[in-house]
Order: sequence, then structure tokens, then C-alpha cells
Amino acid sequence: MSLNYGQNSVGLVTAEKVLIDTPLTLACGTVLPSHELMVETYGCLNTDKSNAILICHALSGHHHAAGFYEGDDKPGWWDDYIGPGKPMDSNRFFIVSLNNIGSCFGSTGPTSTNPATGEAWGAQFPPLRARDWVESQKLLMEKLGIDRWAAVIGGSLGGMQAMRWSLEHPDKVANSIVIASSMRLSAQNIAFNEIARRAIKSDPQFFNGDYLKQGAAPRHGLALARMIGHVTYLSDELMGQKFGRELRSGDFTQGESAPIEFQIESYLNYQGDKFSGGFDANSYILITKMLDYFDLAREYHNNPVEAFSHAQCDFLVISFSSDWRFSPQRSREIVDALIGAEKNVSYAEIESDQGHDAFLLPNPRYEQVLAKYLSRVADQLEGQAT
Amino acid sequence: MSLNYGQNSVGLVTAEKVLIDTPLTLACGTVLPSHELMVETYGCLNTDKSNAILICHALSGHHHAAGFYEGDDKPGWWDDYIGPGKPMDSNRFFIVSLNNIGSCFGSTGPTSTNPATGEAWGAQFPPLRARDWVESQKLLMEKLGIDRWAAVIGGSLGGMQAMRWSLEHPDKVANSIVIASSMRLSAQNIAFNEIARRAIKSDPQFFNGDYLKQGAAPRHGLALARMIGHVTYLSDELMGQKFGRELRSGDFTQGESAPIEFQIESYLNYQGDKFSGGFDANSYILITKMLDYFDLAREYHNNPVEAFSHAQCDFLVISFSSDWRFSPQRSREIVDALIGAEKNVSYAEIESDQGHDAFLLPNPRYEQVLAKYLSRVADQLEGQAT
Repeated sequence: MSLNYGQNSVGLVTAEKVLIDTPLTLACGTVLPSHELMVETYGCLNTDKSNAILICHALSGHHHAAGFYEGDDKPGWWDDYIGPGKPMDSNRFFIVSLNNIGSCFGSTGPTSTNPATGEAWGAQFPPLRARDWVESQKLLMEKLGIDRWAAVIGGSLGGMQAMRWSLEHPDKVANSIVIASSMRLSAQNIAFNEIARRAIKSDPQFFNGDYLKQGAAPRHGLALARMIGHVTYLSDELMGQKFGRELRSGDFTQGESAPIEFQIESYLNYQGDKFSGGFDANSYILITKMLDYFDLAREYHNNPVEAFSHAQCDFLVISFSSDWRFSPQRSREIVDALIGAEKNVSYAEIESDQGHDAFLLPNPRYEQVLAKYLSRVADQLEGQAT
Repeated sequence: MSLNYGQNSVGLVTAEKVLIDTPLTLACGTVLPSHELMVETYGCLNTDKSNAILICHALSGHHHAAGFYEGDDKPGWWDDYIGPGKPMDSNRFFIVSLNNIGSCFGSTGPTSTNPATGEAWGAQFPPLRARDWVESQKLLMEKLGIDRWAAVIGGSLGGMQAMRWSLEHPDKVANSIVIASSMRLSAQNIAFNEIARRAIKSDPQFFNGDYLKQGAAPRHGLALARMIGHVTYLSDELMGQKFGRELRSGDFTQGESAPIEFQIESYLNYQGDKFSGGFDANSYILITKMLDYFDLAREYHNNPVEAFSHAQCDFLVISFSSDWRFSPQRSREIVDALIGAEKNVSYAEIESDQGHDAFLLPNPRYEQVLAKYLSRVADQLEGQAT
């Protein structure tokens, strides 16, 4: 079957809903007696279960990271980097990708039924922190019988989980791969998130988060939220190259009052509308709050070196030159703290005009860095296994 | 009276509504048979009427640039730079500041009555370009009996007017002072403007722009629009220094689910709400469109050097290091084009952490550059007069 999709593709994939029936105590104190996670895996777990990679998704991500669903011609969101012979080589690694709790692609979240009320959680879903995702992933790990991840990897919020893993469960991670991420959000990052949340909340269809009960959805607000986010994911240069000041309609002639629409306007409006049809507004609020909240070193006297001194794994940190959401400077801060804590760290600043989104997109140098690092990891594992 | 306000203040001021009864043909083809402008002046016009400075305001600006209104303890928006002994020295210059058409502080705009219908213009107010503001200012100039501005000065959109003046009426401007501006908006600039407009338009209180007839106002949408704008006016550094990750309410303790509010969130929400109570949504849409539309060289074969070859005045161009809305690079492009066109141009890139807003704020080096340039202009004028 998978031949249809090319020899470097993991081919047809299906997602599985996994019930985690161990209670999960969230950072806020709420206990989820059980929860469900949508999970996909690529490749095979080796006999000593040492070749597993955990993929951590970002704000709007999900479990479908690679391969194709039946009848679908668009692969998973990280398909460029996952597959046979790709940097996350499914011939060598067992790759685990899940949709995290609080999100809206089938895992337990605001659109799921709250067992206490029999209704959708909606805005009553408990606040989450990145560590809650890590703890939920840890329960999944146990369920899969994996004792140690060969690597935990993620971009943006995904990188925050990869860092958190290294501190919370130092003996369970061999490599932490932190891409286009940051140890904490800046005031400007928080500002954009807050504007996005306010856009959602001021949509009259939001009903204080109870829109599901009303059969409604704050789609206008969510579209706006996504448009704001989208601008921060792209670089100024890239938008200039892709759209410049090209018009979609209207013209500049004097004496002409027909409205002008620039291509960039049309593109952004389309992106906003598309997103708002497929994402849940309460999840968006919940996960942007999680981002704002994240502060790697808060519980380590605000000292990142002290924080990372708890880690036992090796690190690969990657940033992109035109990323202004989490700029290379943020990654250099991570690297400095890791060096201060005397950890093994490799760092690559990748030249790219793609902005923050670069971590999702094809880039030969990025691919090479990731492939070399992970192939060394696989070599070591395979060396040990023989 | 003015002694109450300190000896460097222009003291108490009053605004005057000036009727311009000469028909104004707008770039879109619409003719305004007459229009009204709110105007303030500071200092005295000399006998040969050669010492007048025109202040051009930006997106949300107005005529009240300096001094105090009776009973008000907050001075005009550019008071740090206008007054006796200040860079725009009211002892030497006659300074003219107006609210431009399409805005909402008393000049003809969307909230004014459309004589054709007897109702407020609302969304039916004709689209405007920066050149329309220049032509309206030209009619005011004639009304004041001024034949040539000693200087036309403005920041941001104000700088665009200062540039446009130099091309449209080269013999009417002696000096064009262009601060924190650009020859045209980038795709990213347009993107932020479009998100702001969409925020306004998707507020159900917008009623397709007819909210005045409904006794309504899209305040939520306008607040969001302003919040988006505001983030682009401040630098990341400044927001970090001013707000960092300080909390306004809630705390980070584990087991605590009380909502966290960061200071930056509270600040931005306050700014948005304050603005939305004092500005008109249709004006905001109209003027952001004017910004998007502006392209200095469009009618000069997209060649800025060709455009500026029409200018006869001298230029002072100023940018601020941390401005990411119109970065120093944009100002350097202006300077390069002016040099290409063999114009006299002085350029200062001011070190500042205040972002785009720096053009409004106290800064010793900025003050010095502006003061030196304008004092030389005044010296020449006074030399000629004797």
C-alpha cells in the first residue's frame, strides 16, 4: 500500500485512541481519573525497547505527524522529517506521536465529556501546564512498555516539553531535541497570545466558553486569533517575498474608488477561516495560557543553570535565523544554560527566511543536522543491541 | 496664565474649527464641496509669513499637539518637542497642527454629517490617500495666507505626508522632516492592519459600518485593533523591561488553579479599552487603509529616486534603533533615494529602546538632532528677514 506514497513515506497510517486509566494529578490540583490520547506510531519498537522517539506537538498540532490517512493526499505535519531514510528514520526508530490533553483532535480536552457532569468540559476544563503534558506522555510511555526515550523532540511548545522531560524524568530521556523554542515567553509573546484570547472571548458566539451547549462556535474570534498567530510565525522577509504588495483585487488608479485588497490580506483571511473550522476555541485559550505559563527555571530559583543541572540527557538545540517569535537569541540562552550546567549540547542556527514556521518546513541544512544527530543516536543504540 | 504650565510650555491653548469652503477633489474622484478642520497654532507668524511649520499627525493623532486645554493636566501629544525653547521653538516658529479629514476629532470625517443624506457619513465616507490629507492641508495653508512651509514634519504616517508634500508641492516646502516612517508598508505591516480591520468588522456592533445609526459602537473590535497596533508600536525589549513576566493577579504555586494575569495583559487590555472609547471605528479602518495604500514611488515608475527628483526642499530623516514597525532600514531606503536624487539630506538613527513610539517620547539625542536642524532653519529665516 505504502508504495503509492513514495519509498520515503511511512505510507498509510491510522490513529489509535489509547485509554490511560491511571489517575493523572494535574499541576493545578485537579485529578483526571482517566484520560484518552490519540496516538500514531511509525516504525517498530526494537526488542530492548530502546529505540523510541517521542514527538511533542506545538500549539495547534496533533498526533498525525507523518504518513497518510486513507483517501487523504496530504501527509502528517512533520512528514518531511519522519519516514524511512528521513532524519527521524522509521527504519531505525519507533516514533510515537500523540495529541495531548486539552487539545481537540480526539484526546481528552474541552470538547470531551466531563464525567462529573455528563456534558462537554468546555471552559471548565482544568488549566494545564507543559508538565501536565509530560506526565500524560509518561503514562503513555508506561502503557507502551517503554522505559527510556531515545529522544524527545519538538518545535516551539514541543521544545518546551522536550526540555521539561529532561528535568522531570532525567532517567527516562537519552536525548532532548529542542527546536525553535524558548525557556519562557517574553512580554511581547504573551501580548500576542492575550490579544488572540481576547479576540475569541469577545466573539458573542463564545458564550463565556459554553458555546458547545449553545450549538455555537466563536469562529470569527478564533479566525482572528489564528491570523495574529500566523503573522508571528512568518518572517517579514518571507511575507515580503511571497506577497509583497501584490493586489488581489482593485487597482491604484487615481479617480478609482474600488476597494483594494492585497494578496496578504486575502491569504491571512483564508488561513484564519480555515483554522477556525477545525480547531476548538477553548483549546486555543487553554494552550496559549500553557505557553504563557511556561517558565523552565521558575522552580529552580529562576536559575536555568540550576534547572538543567538536573538533566542527564544530551541536547540538540536548533534555531532559525528569521524566527522572531522565538529568536535564535532564545536558543542561545538555552545553550548557555546547558553549558553552564556542564551538559553535552550541540547547537545549530539554521539560515532560513521562513520565520518560526521553519521548523515544519523542508530545509537541507536543518535536515542534515537532525539526520546526523539522530543517526549517531541510532548507531549507538544498534551498537549496544548487538 | 501659561506660567502655571512651566516656562517651556506653550501654556493654555484652544482649538479652532476652520471651514475650508474651496471644493476638494479626492484621489478617489469624490469631491468634498467644503470641509472643516480642527486647528491649533503655537507661536506667531512673522511678517513675511516664512516661519510656519506644519505638523502632520499619524494614525490616531489629532490637532492637539502642544500645550494644555483649560482644566486639563495632560498636554498635547508632541508637547515634549513643541514650545518656547523646544526643538519646534514657538518663540521662533509659527506651528500649525490640524486634525486631518477622515479622522474623528472634530474635522470632517465618518462621524460628520454627509450633506447629501443629512446623516453621518459612517462607512460611506470616501476612501482617502495621504495625498488627500496633503491637499486639504494645502487649502488650510492658503486660508492662513502662508505661501511656503519652513518645514513640514511628522512621524510614521506623518512622515509620509511630509514626503508627499515635497513631491506634490515642491515649491511650497523648504524642509521635509520624516521621522520613523517608510516609503511604503511591507506585507507584514499590511497584515497587522488587516487583522485590526477584521477585528472591527467582525464585531456585531459594527453593523457594516452603520453603527452610529444604530446607536451602537464596535468597541470590542476597536479595542482589539488598538491592542494589535500597540504591540507593534513597542519594542520587545521595552515590553520586557516594563512588564517582563510580572503578574497582576494569581500565582504560580502548584496545586493552584486561580487564573494568572500578567501585567502586560492587563496593560494592553486597558490601552485597548481606553482607545475604543475615544476613537471612531470607521476612521480607524479608513486611515489604516490609507497607510496600506501609501506608496511614495508608485506614480514615478516605482522608482524612489525618480520620485524624489521632483523635490526641491532639504530633508531630515530620523529613525529609531528598536522600531520594528518602520525599522531604520526603511529610513535608510529613503535616505538612499534622496542621495540618488541629489537632495540635501541629514539622517540620524537614534538609539532607543522605545520602539516605534520613540518618535513621541523624550530622548535627548533625538531632541538635539531636531533642535539643531530647526534652529539652523530659524537662523536662516531670521537672517533673511533682517
